Amino acid sequence: MIKIICVGKIKEKFFTDAIKEYEKRISKYSELKVIELEDIGLSDKKVVLKKEEEKILKNINSKDYIITLEIEGKELSSIDFSKKIEDTLITNSNITFIIGGSFGLSESIKSLSNYKLSFSKMTFPHQLFRIILLEQIYRAFKIINNEEYHK
Amino acid sequence: MIKIICVGKIKEKFFTDAIKEYEKRISKYSELKVIELEDIGLSDKKVVLKKEEEKILKNINSKDYIITLEIEGKELSSIDFSKKIEDTLITNSNITFIIGGSFGLSESIKSLSNYKLSFSKMTFPHQLFRIILLEQIYRAFKIINNEEYHK
Repeated sequence: MIKIICVGKIKEKFFTDAIKEYEKRISKYSELKVIELEDIGLSDKKVVLKKEEEKILKNINSKDYIITLEIEGKELSSIDFSKKIEDTLITNSNITFIIGGSFGLSESIKSLSNYKLSFSKMTFPHQLFRIILLEQIYRAFKIINNEEYHK
Repeated sequence: MIKIICVGKIKEKFFTDAIKEYEKRISKYSELKVIELEDIGLSDKKVVLKKEEEKILKNINSKDYIITLEIEGKELSSIDFSKKIEDTLITNSNITFIIGGSFGLSESIKSLSNYKLSFSKMTFPHQLFRIILLEQIYRAFKIINNEEYHK
């Protein structure tokens, strides 16, 4: 199973529609669970990270292989990302991606991470990033299954 | 002026809506011209690149500062990307981004490039990439103008 834990609601209709479309496409290859945590909406970084941490912890368990999205994480090509997913699913039943809110992730969430992944040096809005991640997961399954990907 | 030359039509409604939204937002800061070239739809890489090259050449002129999007280009943070845009617009009236089709860009287009930029090691579908580029251009103008960016 692929689990995505993310902070913040998707507001724009074009983003929710794109997300739904990729969720539908991924569901042909794997069970997918997206857990959307409410944005705390405070400006105190320490407080926000702590509160988000508590919510994230409630949604992970010891069986999860945790991939955190961190700007300083490792960058992979789409091919290497698909290999990473394929290899991980051989020995783990769950891959859990964790995307933080505006302040990123707390140190203790980072310390639970099995793999720190970065998509870009650039900062993307969380709504757009969710689509980017879903599209790469979908692409990964297409690559794993040797299926043609229509760009 | 910001000019974007790209190959391939946007088909999904949620993508066209997202693109329109970012185009509207950017237009507050700069004139924006998006030139969408038709996808050749052939499988011979050499032929496709040559035909795309001809079309691209018709849409650039000697005054353009050309930024090509290439997977092997330089990766910048959002802050550095905004500096790049700000600095370039001091001495150039036009910044022209060129995004290739499925086969990338021909060698002669690459040789015309003033700056080779990469957003990620990953490959994105051209529809999604157009949104990613527009969002970063919009973000760059927000940064240049010291405006808050609501993620």
